[in-house]
Amino acid sequence: MASYLVTGSSRGLGLALITRLASLPKSEVGTIIATARRDNSAQINEIASASSGRVQMVKLDVTDESSVKKAVGVVERQLQGKGLDYLVNNAGVTDWSPTGLEGMDNLNEVLNVNVTAPHLVSRAFLPLLRKGEKKTVINISTTLGSVAMANAFRPLPTPAYKISKAALNMLTVQYAQQYADEGFTFLAISPGWLRTDLGGRRAHLSVETGAEKAVEIIQKATPKQNGKFLNIHVPGWEAPEGADQYDGEEIPW
Amino acid sequence: MASYLVTGSSRGLGLALITRLASLPKSEVGTIIATARRDNSAQINEIASASSGRVQMVKLDVTDESSVKKAVGVVERQLQGKGLDYLVNNAGVTDWSPTGLEGMDNLNEVLNVNVTAPHLVSRAFLPLLRKGEKKTVINISTTLGSVAMANAFRPLPTPAYKISKAALNMLTVQYAQQYADEGFTFLAISPGWLRTDLGGRRAHLSVETGAEKAVEIIQKATPKQNGKFLNIHVPGWEAPEGADQYDGEEIPW
Repeated sequence: MASYLVTGSSRGLGLALITRLASLPKSEVGTIIATARRDNSAQINEIASASSGRVQMVKLDVTDESSVKKAVGVVERQLQGKGLDYLVNNAGVTDWSPTGLEGMDNLNEVLNVNVTAPHLVSRAFLPLLRKGEKKTVINISTTLGSVAMANAFRPLPTPAYKISKAALNMLTVQYAQQYADEGFTFLAISPGWLRTDLGGRRAHLSVETGAEKAVEIIQKATPKQNGKFLNIHVPGWEAPEGADQYDGEEIPW
Repeated sequence: MASYLVTGSSRGLGLALITRLASLPKSEVGTIIATARRDNSAQINEIASASSGRVQMVKLDVTDESSVKKAVGVVERQLQGKGLDYLVNNAGVTDWSPTGLEGMDNLNEVLNVNVTAPHLVSRAFLPLLRKGEKKTVINISTTLGSVAMANAFRPLPTPAYKISKAALNMLTVQYAQQYADEGFTFLAISPGWLRTDLGGRRAHLSVETGAEKAVEIIQKATPKQNGKFLNIHVPGWEAPEGADQYDGEEIPW
């Protein structure tokens, strides 16, 4: 009966993650907190009303520290004295700059949403996570944030996104270092190139597959993996080409 | 007679870099543009007045795009029709958070100065660099920005600095990719742990040594090294311990 909180749950991978979690038996997944920037999300409401109270929506603007703190209070009451087991920092944005760096005019904004916000959220939820049994924080990253793999992704004109995810990886590793002794597990996960608003139509995998495989990693996570950067595993996608590979292995930094 | 522009030249490594450059023969180093945020710097003025016009100070706030653009115009006039050979993005800040991530409250600010500013400066000076013969841009990074080496630097409580330099490395690699075909060389250099305001007194090396060794890399840089992350080479410091090593080799991401 582990509890989960997923940020950015009103669409894309976040929505698929809570949908997937809500489909799993109650022996595995208990309360699912689906957060979104806006007060109301028809998508989340639909899942919530079919969930017999298991999925609960909470308003949370990840870039606004006062909104984050307010959400911590709401979640604390919802968990009724229990801790939070899994925090999934999923909310994020990308850029799209056909002229590459020449047109990269939103770097600060992308860094704020993709790096500073997961920091604000993780830090604020630490007390509730400490009370949880799993003490696991998942930062949704991407192989595009791997500097070592950068050549493979050269044609993709999302410079700010790539920079922000490299930075998120360093944030993840530092959280892993600082809270290892308390039994925490911090992971950066690459959920694959998914057909979402962010990933576009040409992407490799359905968002359902990405969510299913990411949840697989999350549920199996142990403190031994603390600080790692993990790829999802999709059978048939253990291809030799690095950029198209979903082999479940560690991704180089 | 190559020309150089170094940002953040009024102190620390920047000041040492222009001092070192001004000490080299005119057959190697021509015009040296020393930029600083403030209009006037006694330190730069001193070097400039002893340089017979070779060192020129230009006001440039790297975080302010209009200041950057204004500086490009000033430098263009100073170079009198010639291009700029070397741009050294040196200006930067660090944080110091004894409580680690708990006290990291300035991440956006550090990212703005250490990542977004080098982007603004590089992009704005591209036309002048295209006219130069060397077409070389040096981003002053650090081994602390290496996610692969993060364990070695675990005790150093500069979380925002580490995150920003990992991001700067990804910025560097993307510039290297985008401008490789035009003959550009973009490098990330780790100048060593230096005794400056930023590095503190316990640091390994004098700032003069760091500057000398960094200039050594810069002068030898070739397009073959484009996109690399290089350590300085200090004889006697090819020690086995990664964190204390200045072996002149590539640093893992």
